[in-house]
Amino acid sequence: MAHDLRQTMSLLARTPAALDALLRDLPETWTQRNEGEDTWSPFEIVGHLIHGERTDWMSRTRMILHSGESVTFEPFDRLGQRRELEGTSLEQLLDEFARVRSENLAELRALNLRPEDLERRGRHPALGSVTLSQLLSTWAIHDLTHLHQISRVMAHQYRDDVGPWSRYLGVLQCAGHSSSA
Amino acid sequence: MAHDLRQTMSLLARTPAALDALLRDLPETWTQRNEGEDTWSPFEIVGHLIHGERTDWMSRTRMILHSGESVTFEPFDRLGQRRELEGTSLEQLLDEFARVRSENLAELRALNLRPEDLERRGRHPALGSVTLSQLLSTWAIHDLTHLHQISRVMAHQYRDDVGPWSRYLGVLQCAGHSSSA
Repeated sequence: MAHDLRQTMSLLARTPAALDALLRDLPETWTQRNEGEDTWSPFEIVGHLIHGERTDWMSRTRMILHSGESVTFEPFDRLGQRRELEGTSLEQLLDEFARVRSENLAELRALNLRPEDLERRGRHPALGSVTLSQLLSTWAIHDLTHLHQISRVMAHQYRDDVGPWSRYLGVLQCAGHSSSA
Repeated sequence: MAHDLRQTMSLLARTPAALDALLRDLPETWTQRNEGEDTWSPFEIVGHLIHGERTDWMSRTRMILHSGESVTFEPFDRLGQRRELEGTSLEQLLDEFARVRSENLAELRALNLRPEDLERRGRHPALGSVTLSQLLSTWAIHDLTHLHQISRVMAHQYRDDVGPWSRYLGVLQCAGHSSSA
């Protein structure tokens, strides 16, 4: 089925406000704690989403349109958000995520992509040949991967507090799944 | 550690706005599709959350405070939302969820629960003796279970569209975990 770009963008446009409504001004138990060593807090996850906006999605889109498969994407630095996080607050990160996402969607809209553009190909350093359609779909599902992760990280903080109900709460059964893009 | 009721309520207060920001006016591909037979769409999940507000959390809270372990909770009807869904729109459900959640939190606040109240016990039909603290913690983590589920159900709709990136997207590896409360 042809890629419905309006549908993909409608989700991308909502993620910053959804995370804002969920996380802004929440107690730090929910936003600053993680699932253990080498795992991310919701605060860090928002930083990671900002880093993707700055370095991944639109720069790869431009690369596909300008160079096709002749140039390989830069590998995405999954720890690149560390620079975003220094000396900042969750509230600043939420503002910044909304700003950079909005800018990127404005740029994407201005490209006026045609169906044939969405079938153009680029080269991923590990996955090989990929289409622009797959890249833009992945951008949206990457948001959902991290919403899924945030809900799991937050739930983890109350793992003991729910007592015997833990067996009924699906999010507490989720072992987590590594993700990158 | 003692239950921080303010912390629990701060999460409960945000869920309706977070789901509203994520789902309102989204194309139906994201909101009305499920993961296959006998699974729920985001639309149905919001109905389920409303049903919990009407029949589960505060009625069990009252039962613990009034009757302790002498009366067993009514089993929660996991399909009870079907009545909520007839002839209604997602936008109406989001409004209704915000309304009933806000009423329930106002009622909870008005109880002025003391730490010793949170240790009072009730009787769950399957889990046996549970505390009010565990019930209120479960209310919050039940929200997160369904946010986790909604992100997974939405991601499922683009499972094929992301192409080779699917292996990197954690939410697409999540097999789902049954939940009830």
